[in-house]
Amino acid sequence: MTTTTDRILNFSAGPATLPEPVLEQARTDIWNVRESGIGICEHSHRGPVFDEVLAEAVADCRAVGQIPEEFDILFLQGGATMQFAMVPMNFLPEGATANYVNTGVWTSKAQKEAMKLGNVHVAYEGEADKFDHCPKQDELECAPDAAYLHYCSNNTIYGTQFNHTLSDSGRIVCDMSSDIFSKPIDWNAFDMIYAGAQKNLGPSGTVLVIARKDMLETCPTHLPSMLNYNAIAKKGSRLNTPPAFGIYLMGQVFKWILSEGGVTAMHERNTRKASCIYEALEANSHCYTIFAKEGSRSLMNISFTTNEDVKNEMFLKEAASQGMSGLKGHRDLGGIRASIYNAFPEEGCKRFAEFLNTFAQSH
Amino acid sequence: MTTTTDRILNFSAGPATLPEPVLEQARTDIWNVRESGIGICEHSHRGPVFDEVLAEAVADCRAVGQIPEEFDILFLQGGATMQFAMVPMNFLPEGATANYVNTGVWTSKAQKEAMKLGNVHVAYEGEADKFDHCPKQDELECAPDAAYLHYCSNNTIYGTQFNHTLSDSGRIVCDMSSDIFSKPIDWNAFDMIYAGAQKNLGPSGTVLVIARKDMLETCPTHLPSMLNYNAIAKKGSRLNTPPAFGIYLMGQVFKWILSEGGVTAMHERNTRKASCIYEALEANSHCYTIFAKEGSRSLMNISFTTNEDVKNEMFLKEAASQGMSGLKGHRDLGGIRASIYNAFPEEGCKRFAEFLNTFAQSH
Repeated sequence: MTTTTDRILNFSAGPATLPEPVLEQARTDIWNVRESGIGICEHSHRGPVFDEVLAEAVADCRAVGQIPEEFDILFLQGGATMQFAMVPMNFLPEGATANYVNTGVWTSKAQKEAMKLGNVHVAYEGEADKFDHCPKQDELECAPDAAYLHYCSNNTIYGTQFNHTLSDSGRIVCDMSSDIFSKPIDWNAFDMIYAGAQKNLGPSGTVLVIARKDMLETCPTHLPSMLNYNAIAKKGSRLNTPPAFGIYLMGQVFKWILSEGGVTAMHERNTRKASCIYEALEANSHCYTIFAKEGSRSLMNISFTTNEDVKNEMFLKEAASQGMSGLKGHRDLGGIRASIYNAFPEEGCKRFAEFLNTFAQSH
Repeated sequence: MTTTTDRILNFSAGPATLPEPVLEQARTDIWNVRESGIGICEHSHRGPVFDEVLAEAVADCRAVGQIPEEFDILFLQGGATMQFAMVPMNFLPEGATANYVNTGVWTSKAQKEAMKLGNVHVAYEGEADKFDHCPKQDELECAPDAAYLHYCSNNTIYGTQFNHTLSDSGRIVCDMSSDIFSKPIDWNAFDMIYAGAQKNLGPSGTVLVIARKDMLETCPTHLPSMLNYNAIAKKGSRLNTPPAFGIYLMGQVFKWILSEGGVTAMHERNTRKASCIYEALEANSHCYTIFAKEGSRSLMNISFTTNEDVKNEMFLKEAASQGMSGLKGHRDLGGIRASIYNAFPEEGCKRFAEFLNTFAQSH
């Protein structure tokens, strides 16, 4: 086993830090997985070893997410951005309308892609508030009889997160790329969720889609196979050669979450992790301003600023000198952002909180 | 360094064996790449480390393929199957026709996807000959003024390979998934080529697309971003989070090809590798029948049969007992198939040729 001393604290918003036991296992398996004499990237996707890897990934995903049987679990490609197009292609029939909740850059992109393909109604526009919070149900103005309502559960750029669910008369589709499996999911409140892997689940290049089976059955048959959820579901994510390494690594992350006590334990730890950082920011409010409004503060991404560009730069430089990387805020918002997904260590959050205190006292 | 003794001979048609020096490097880099303290799957796709990885992958790809400047190099997702749809979406305008050359299962699938999206003319249909060869130019009956002609340079299932190029009045699009960079490419004969990574290039989940820049400029703007080659080209394959590990590993494979002497050296070695197997098969023609006709025999996939199902089974079982895996023929053809892409060792081909002799003599 390698010691962890050659690795630094990686606050990247995604691709993001992965659990070290998962990486250790991958180092073995990329050379020779399950003592097959063949590495995980080199096995036929229809052979017995990958059969097991895929079946375990699906079963462990179901166990982690406590996903009811009426939902199918799919592994796709193309990131959340491909989902922005596939959702309307599959679920927005001609003449119908979809409600979109705009809480930031990523939901605007989802909206823009959907507008190429059908009628979009903006049920909530957060731009005037600079996307500083997630709307309550009564802030929405939904079009009636919409095919679906689309929203995003956690906005990485602004550090805002829903701590409630939204409802509508149609289907509910949610982009959970940045907080999936960081806490329990109320499956009654969703018909389909999707998540790019590279934040809470694994490497970039794989997307997890979880959707009601009866919804998948409504996908139009005229679509190209790779853009038809139902065609892929019928083939158990093996309509063509799937992204085998990504599925394997996500499977290892699922096993790691289970070994750590599951999503409830993740949520408790994530709450402790974020709290110690928010507390340090608030205790030094003369130095730091948190971007997100109270009530919408994310446990995954903490966006803040020292209110001075020069001071922000100094902060990033001093943090880097202490082995803390990836803290620069998104180019659309500026400032500082600490992304602390499931795999980010609690000890690292404590170290960061101490650094916040020290920096505020000395500047 | 790990010894190679715990790995077996992997004849899988794809995902397929990768160069061992590449896997060794990946075992380091998945934990901590370029001494950054962060693994290759965990780096921001917009950070300086991945900037380098991507820039080197593009430059090394250009060097390996001797790709002229008028071509763009793109890394996409979704396998060749997504390309089957993206090619007509981007390059088959309404009312236009595309010529398709059908040399097997994969080209029929490409045809079928294109037929959902526009007019397809089958310029060659190989089914009557059971796809036992690749047609010469004069076997084609092309529709005039077609937007493009689509063909596949190597057919993995039947073990057939073009050793000439095809021409037409429109653009030429070629699926090179199973023989890319196994030999030099005459770029005058192509406008766009694509290849799923999992045979000659790297792990599944990444697709290499090489296309003329002036062709990319004709992509229709109404397409969803992730389905628009030009939108992705403009962003240098980073329209969204790309499949970072796949691009990294392909980059390592490119470096390996260069270190081995480039595609000309690959071609010489691949010729020696395939020849020793074909010679053993022909020397024992009482026992084996090669599927592909002379003149179309692939250097990448060698499909043959003992002409008896029971004997084929025995062959596979005895081969497995000697550490030779992945030799079962595709379900559509049956029999035996040895896939010996670039990374498959020459020594392994010699061992297999010996096994062919021994088996034929003893059965």
